Amino acid sequence: MKKPQWVIGKEQARRARAAETVWLFGLHAVRDALLNPRRERLRLVLTPNARDRLAEAVAAAGIEAEIADPRRFPAPLDPGSVHQGAALEARPLDWGAPADHIGGAAARLVLLDRVSDPHNVGAILRSAEVFGADAVIGVERHAAPETGALAKAASGALERQPYLRVKNLARTIAELQAAGFTVLGLDGAAGASIGDAAQDLRDRPAAIVLGAEGPGLRQGTRAACDALVRIPAAGAFGSLNVSNAAAVALYALQPG
Amino acid sequence: MKKPQWVIGKEQARRARAAETVWLFGLHAVRDALLNPRRERLRLVLTPNARDRLAEAVAAAGIEAEIADPRRFPAPLDPGSVHQGAALEARPLDWGAPADHIGGAAARLVLLDRVSDPHNVGAILRSAEVFGADAVIGVERHAAPETGALAKAASGALERQPYLRVKNLARTIAELQAAGFTVLGLDGAAGASIGDAAQDLRDRPAAIVLGAEGPGLRQGTRAACDALVRIPAAGAFGSLNVSNAAAVALYALQPG
Repeated sequence: MKKPQWVIGKEQARRARAAETVWLFGLHAVRDALLNPRRERLRLVLTPNARDRLAEAVAAAGIEAEIADPRRFPAPLDPGSVHQGAALEARPLDWGAPADHIGGAAARLVLLDRVSDPHNVGAILRSAEVFGADAVIGVERHAAPETGALAKAASGALERQPYLRVKNLARTIAELQAAGFTVLGLDGAAGASIGDAAQDLRDRPAAIVLGAEGPGLRQGTRAACDALVRIPAAGAFGSLNVSNAAAVALYALQPG
Repeated sequence: MKKPQWVIGKEQARRARAAETVWLFGLHAVRDALLNPRRERLRLVLTPNARDRLAEAVAAAGIEAEIADPRRFPAPLDPGSVHQGAALEARPLDWGAPADHIGGAAARLVLLDRVSDPHNVGAILRSAEVFGADAVIGVERHAAPETGALAKAASGALERQPYLRVKNLARTIAELQAAGFTVLGLDGAAGASIGDAAQDLRDRPAAIVLGAEGPGLRQGTRAACDALVRIPAAGAFGSLNVSNAAAVALYALQPG
């Protein structure tokens, strides 16, 4: 019997995902990935100096390192990547679906509407971890992929902080609302302030949605939110960097 | 009569400062610098396309643009600088001394103890502008200089947000305290939370001090502060990017 087209499509997507690899680099990012039992590791390249500094993590991971001359470092990194003599080829982490991350009574989620800059997304993962957010969720075709640059900006949080990508953000918002979440869209022109909105959400699940710098939230995303809120500004000029806005929003929405 | 050594030193410093120039790049940063009456402009290089897009700002600035071939763009920028066909050589802005920026009853200052990454300092200038901070103050020999990369990260705020560098941060802290400021050092291990500290400072002048990622605040800086405070974290892992920490601190310390 011939397989239906959608089954073939799913299988192709799964194979493509399995074939996808990411080169992590830098002592910090490589150490954290070596110590993460959920991380599937393929190839480790170290200079003699980096091998000494990562000896414990390499032993714990049980992977054989390929020792390289620092002047001819063989990992295929972007020029200018500060690798500090350490690079690890690995599979992206599989964090499952949003439904796997919405357990707690005062759950917190960060939704990214086409925020694709790896430095910003890395910093957002850091903040999400610090403030105990359950997951960060991007849009599949317009999210920052898991790359070495993102890992570096995340400073270890990439290994620990769930980072998911979904096909359709408006549908995910509807699913979260059905699961009891209040979904707040961040918008500088909104009337309500995030601090006021947070008062009612101390012990209830909440998600905050951030748009890309410049375009902001898409129309469909705005319409899907329960409310739009702003971070109060003192003057008429300027705007927060998107990772700074995410940190402030997570602080304002701290449970308890 | 021979000039005393300290006079010669001061004159040399002034000449060095006058000789210092910065290349700003990118449509946004160049437009904002052209529209800033306080910005001393030396040389403007534009592609024909960028000239069309910046026509109004160029006319307002009354400067003659040098039109360049996009394939042989003559401005001495770092490789990888996304200049969008626009570069402006200018003098760094002179924002005077801290005492010039401590007027208001609920003044807010951000002090940077050796935070030198231009992307972080640029983002901090953006946040400082949004939250109405009176100035951002770094340490002269360990601060991010005013560069094109910093200007780009600041997204216009560099032209409007006072950014000063002082020789001795502990001395500046003492001067601020003498002027009535409460100076809070941000430290993840502190007992008090910034939210609690902020309660007492709604209508009083306050400064927040941030250290570089990794080393944090220097011992002398910590000792000079009135109190150390932390941004409450949910878990044991991770830390905020320094610009994210600055944004949260400024939000928590909003007057009123």
